[in-house]
Amino acid sequence: GTLGGLGLALGLWRRQAALAAAREDEEEKELRQRFMAPPVSGLRELRRRRRELRSRMELLIMETQAEMCRALADLDPGASFAVDSWERKEGGGGISCVLQDGEIFEKAGVNVSVVSGILSEEAARQMRSRGKSLKAKDGKLPFCAMGVSSVIHPKNPHVPTMHFNYRYFEIEEADGTKQWWFGGGTDLTPTYLNEEDAIHFHKTLKEACDKHDPKLYPKYKKWCDDYFYIKHRGERRGIGGIFFDDVDSPSKEEVFQFVKSCAKAVVPCYIPIVKKHCHDSFTPEEKLWQQLRRGRYVEFNLVYDRGTKFGLLTPGSRIESILMSLPLTARWEYMHNPPESSKEAEILEVLRNPKDWVH
Amino acid sequence: GTLGGLGLALGLWRRQAALAAAREDEEEKELRQRFMAPPVSGLRELRRRRRELRSRMELLIMETQAEMCRALADLDPGASFAVDSWERKEGGGGISCVLQDGEIFEKAGVNVSVVSGILSEEAARQMRSRGKSLKAKDGKLPFCAMGVSSVIHPKNPHVPTMHFNYRYFEIEEADGTKQWWFGGGTDLTPTYLNEEDAIHFHKTLKEACDKHDPKLYPKYKKWCDDYFYIKHRGERRGIGGIFFDDVDSPSKEEVFQFVKSCAKAVVPCYIPIVKKHCHDSFTPEEKLWQQLRRGRYVEFNLVYDRGTKFGLLTPGSRIESILMSLPLTARWEYMHNPPESSKEAEILEVLRNPKDWVH
Repeated sequence: GTLGGLGLALGLWRRQAALAAAREDEEEKELRQRFMAPPVSGLRELRRRRRELRSRMELLIMETQAEMCRALADLDPGASFAVDSWERKEGGGGISCVLQDGEIFEKAGVNVSVVSGILSEEAARQMRSRGKSLKAKDGKLPFCAMGVSSVIHPKNPHVPTMHFNYRYFEIEEADGTKQWWFGGGTDLTPTYLNEEDAIHFHKTLKEACDKHDPKLYPKYKKWCDDYFYIKHRGERRGIGGIFFDDVDSPSKEEVFQFVKSCAKAVVPCYIPIVKKHCHDSFTPEEKLWQQLRRGRYVEFNLVYDRGTKFGLLTPGSRIESILMSLPLTARWEYMHNPPESSKEAEILEVLRNPKDWVH
Repeated sequence: GTLGGLGLALGLWRRQAALAAAREDEEEKELRQRFMAPPVSGLRELRRRRRELRSRMELLIMETQAEMCRALADLDPGASFAVDSWERKEGGGGISCVLQDGEIFEKAGVNVSVVSGILSEEAARQMRSRGKSLKAKDGKLPFCAMGVSSVIHPKNPHVPTMHFNYRYFEIEEADGTKQWWFGGGTDLTPTYLNEEDAIHFHKTLKEACDKHDPKLYPKYKKWCDDYFYIKHRGERRGIGGIFFDDVDSPSKEEVFQFVKSCAKAVVPCYIPIVKKHCHDSFTPEEKLWQQLRRGRYVEFNLVYDRGTKFGLLTPGSRIESILMSLPLTARWEYMHNPPESSKEAEILEVLRNPKDWVH
C-alpha cells in the first residue's frame, strides 16, 4: 500500500543520507590527512572548480605546506605545530603553521594565504612601478593572491636556515581581461659553508628547473643572488637558490607545471641537509656566529624584503604571519670582524662574491 | 757684539717656542680631559671660528658625548668604551664610543658625526618632501650636518633603554643664502612600567624645555609619541619624551640655547634611573620579556626610523655607527600575548595609549 511505499522511499532516502554522510566523513578524514587545516576556499568549492588554475594552485600550496610540516615534525617529534586558521576581513584568509623552540628547530613556520579583494592604491602603484599597465574600472582593481611561504631556522649552527615561497596573482582589469603571474623561489642561508650541502641544494633546484627549460636555473639563480642582497653590508643573505617574479609565459599551464616542480623540490633539497647535520656538535663560538648571522637575516627582511615591506604596509594583513620569518633570537655586535682564514671569513667571502655551485 | 745679540735673540726665541709647546701640551691635556677624542674639525679651527654657531654646536655635541660616556663608565667600571675616530671619504667624519657586554650595560653607544659635502639627490628629495624649497646651483646643494646620538641598552630588565639625538643642519642655496635647522629628542623605552621613573624622566625634560618656552614640552612630547610609532603593531616604541625636527625659529641663537638645555638634561633625566634599578633582582621570565621588547625596538629602527633608513641609503655613511642603535640581543616569538592584568600587559597598555606624565 501507500504506507508501505512511503516506508520504502523513506528507507531508501535514509540509506542514501547515511551513505552521503559516510562519504563526507571519509572526505573529512582524507582532508585531515592531506592538509594541515581545511582550505580557505573550502574543499567542496575547490572540487566544483577543479579545472580552474586558482583551485589547482590552492591545492598545490596546501599540499606543499603539509609535506613540509610533516617532514619537519618527523625530525622534531617532541615539538608540535601550532596551526592557526585565520580570516581576512577584506576577503580570504590563511593557515599558519609554526613550530617554536623544538629540539631541532628554533622556529619553523609554513604559511598559506589565499586572499582576494580590491587592490590598495599603494599596491597598484608598486605593481605599476614594476612595469605592469593596469586599467582600473572606477579606480578599482579586483585581485586574488595566493601562496605558500616558509622560513625554517634550526638550532644547530651547522644546519642552514631555509626559505621558500611560491605564489600566484590574478588581477581583473576594467574590460574584464585577467592579468596573472607566478612568483617564487627557494634559498639557503648557512651559518658555515658546507660545499657538499650547497651543491646538493642547488643541484636539486636545477633538476626541478631543467625539466621545463634549461635556461631557467641559471636565470633564476642569478635573480636570487641579486634579490637577497643586503646593500648596506655588501653581502647576500645566504648562498642563494632560485628566485623569480612576474612570470607569465609561455602559458599559464606551463608556468604552473614549473612552479609545481619547484614546490615538490622543497623537501628533497633541504631535509637531507637537516638530517645530516642536526646532531653535529658545536661550540659556543659557533652558536654566537649563528646569532650574528640571524641579525643579518633580520636586517634583510625588515629593510629590503619586498614581501615583508608590502605586508607591513597593507591594511588587514596578518602581522604575526608576516613576521613569522624572523628568527627566535638574533644578535648585533659593534664592529664584529671575523679573523682572516677563519670558517666565519669563509662564508662571508661567498656571501660577498656568490659562486656557481652546479654547472 | 753682534754674536751676543744673536745669542740673546736665539735664547728668547727658544723660550717662546718652549712656552708655545707647553701651551699646546696643556691644550692637548685639557682636550683629552674634556672630550673622548679630538674634534672632527680640529680644536684650533674651532677656537679660530669660536663665534660661529657651527663651532659652538660641535663643541656642545662633543661635550655631551663625553658627559654621557663618563656617566656610563662610572656606573660600569669593569667595562670600557671602544673609541673609534673615523673619516668620511666625501667629507667630515665622526667619533663612535661603544661599550659592549658590560656588567650594567648590554650595549651603550654614543656617536658624534660632523659631515659635509654635496647633498645626494635622494636626501634632497626627502627634504623637499618635508616642505623645504631648496634652490640648487647646477643641481648641487652644499651641506653641513652634525649631531650627537646615543642608544643605551642596559642588561637589567628593570632599567629602561634610553635614546637621544641632537643635530644641526645647514644647506647653502644657489644664491648663497643658508638654510639651517635643528632637530633632536630624548626618549625612554622601559621593559616594565615604573611610574616614578616615567615622571622623573618627563619632568626633567619639561624643565629643560620650560626655561625657553612653556609651549615647547607639550608640543614636542606629542611629536615624540607620534614619531616613535610602530604602525604594524599599533604600539609606540617606548613611553616617549621629546622629539622635534626642522626647528628654525625664533632665531638661531635661541634654538641653540634650547638644544643646549636639552643636551644638558640627558644625564640628569636618565642616570638616576639606572642607579636606582641596576641592582634590582629579576626573573628569567622578566629577561625574556625584555628580549621580546628588544625585538620591537629593532622593528621600529629598521622599518620606520628616518635617521636609520636615511643612513642606510646614503653613500659613504658608516654602517656600524648607524646600527650601533640595535640591541646586543633580541627575540621574536610567534603570537606572544601577555596575560591580562600582568606587568607585561601594563606596559603594553601605555605603549598603545600614551599617557601624560607631568602637568
